Amino acid sequence: MTDDAHDPYDPRAFHDALAAHGLIVPTAVKGGWGRGAVFEDILERFDALVMRGAAGDGAEAFTFPPLIAREMIERLGYLDNFPQLIGSVHSFFGADAVARELSQRVHDGQRWDDLLEPTGVMLLPAACYPVYPLFSGLLPDGGRLVTTRNWCYRHEPSDEPTRLQSFRMREFIRVGPPAQVEAWRDDWLQRALTLLRGLGLAAASDVANDPFFGRAGRMMATSQREQRLKFEIMVPVISATRPTAICSFNWHQEHFTSTFGIRCADSAVAHTACLGFGLERVVLALIKTHGFDTAAWPADVRTQLWPA
Amino acid sequence: MTDDAHDPYDPRAFHDALAAHGLIVPTAVKGGWGRGAVFEDILERFDALVMRGAAGDGAEAFTFPPLIAREMIERLGYLDNFPQLIGSVHSFFGADAVARELSQRVHDGQRWDDLLEPTGVMLLPAACYPVYPLFSGLLPDGGRLVTTRNWCYRHEPSDEPTRLQSFRMREFIRVGPPAQVEAWRDDWLQRALTLLRGLGLAAASDVANDPFFGRAGRMMATSQREQRLKFEIMVPVISATRPTAICSFNWHQEHFTSTFGIRCADSAVAHTACLGFGLERVVLALIKTHGFDTAAWPADVRTQLWPA
Repeated sequence: MTDDAHDPYDPRAFHDALAAHGLIVPTAVKGGWGRGAVFEDILERFDALVMRGAAGDGAEAFTFPPLIAREMIERLGYLDNFPQLIGSVHSFFGADAVARELSQRVHDGQRWDDLLEPTGVMLLPAACYPVYPLFSGLLPDGGRLVTTRNWCYRHEPSDEPTRLQSFRMREFIRVGPPAQVEAWRDDWLQRALTLLRGLGLAAASDVANDPFFGRAGRMMATSQREQRLKFEIMVPVISATRPTAICSFNWHQEHFTSTFGIRCADSAVAHTACLGFGLERVVLALIKTHGFDTAAWPADVRTQLWPA
Repeated sequence: MTDDAHDPYDPRAFHDALAAHGLIVPTAVKGGWGRGAVFEDILERFDALVMRGAAGDGAEAFTFPPLIAREMIERLGYLDNFPQLIGSVHSFFGADAVARELSQRVHDGQRWDDLLEPTGVMLLPAACYPVYPLFSGLLPDGGRLVTTRNWCYRHEPSDEPTRLQSFRMREFIRVGPPAQVEAWRDDWLQRALTLLRGLGLAAASDVANDPFFGRAGRMMATSQREQRLKFEIMVPVISATRPTAICSFNWHQEHFTSTFGIRCADSAVAHTACLGFGLERVVLALIKTHGFDTAAWPADVRTQLWPA
């Protein structure tokens, strides 16, 4: 049971109840609230549960800062497909006189962004992007499996509590022979459903598409759906009829392997696929499903997240 | 013993040895390398050691995304003092036709930054910044103590392995009556020295200054030193004669409390101070001091970081 019983799917009421219970802390950033200690504990416990379940897979683990080289974003076609979501990092390269003008404009409430220049970095849009260049060249037999957990940015400022500008993704990335990569994706779709349903979540999977920009983007989205290249696992969090994606699966085929010159051990074409848990969204789905007081969550959920 | 015995303080050799041992993974971002599993394990273990030592202090814990509201950076005077370090986040707000131009320019290798507009956010320059607005209004008796660990950005691209554009800080922030805040800072300076020396680090503290910009900045730096408002704890990592700061202490006096209307329970003036461990730098100092193989680290260091 949740506190907003008058409308169990009112996003505003859910946000306010999360704040009232100290689970989140509002900030001046839309979709950039602070996380309280209990929220973080749930997030870390869920991530640890995922990692325990995947321990036998032997994934190599890396962690990356929330940045990516500008040239990577340019090479990967991200600006063709998702320009509306980018975060381009700009800074000040000027000398004393221009710095005084910058300071004066800030104090006068005038715009000052034209005094900046782009840096060599952009914000990381997906946790897996820094991984693909590591695969460059010939792969070992059977390919590779990597896991990474990083902060991602999407320029989507919103008051809707599951729509974050900045959030953490736990990803697994598989590279290797196409049939093995597809089988790995299919297997993980079932594993993730079992894991999430085992935590009491009303999780369902479906074919999905990325939010490609504009008119050309609609064709990209249709093609992606027709080829069944993207799946999402969804749970009702802020709407009964429009469930929230908490886990997604992308089969990139040759998109990354052709860009970074990645080939199988026998020089044949390699494919990549990835899956990612949106960690904040999983936490919100758990809270929405089981309530604001973790001590009152069902015993079988508690024993999985907080094992003895 | 380290592998680069020919010059134990050669930054390039240290970077290459870190990569050769899989502790870090080079990326296309200067000061933005990936962290391997062992590097992350050391970092998490050190952070856990700090948190165990501070458990009795009862700090409230919050986690924030690596972003901050643009208006916060403007209000806090950061653009007066450190414009060279900022990361301003810009994105694309245009329609189809402009998106096609953006795409074309990217493919033609032309600049495209003038097609962007600033967003409402900037990169977080210091882990503690999102905490101060939480204190607005009248404080409880004795003030408050908060801890937070966040990713910070500084526009300082460099190949020097301890000079990162993006890194994590574990901070403690104290707000309350000025004498209590100063005593807390003094006490923590000794606690941190004891903790770091207990891990075998050749740690020494000294008065320091922030990297204020330009000519006016030199006066700010001198004043900060004269008032002993900033201390750093340093360890030799990439130079024997210029040790690297791995922990810093800032006494802000009324800087934040006046901006955010923070007053003591009796309505008197409140001060703030903070201390922060630069977590990646602590890890690098430990590796430099004890070697690239954690299994061979001194037993008393291992038992503290990896308790039974």
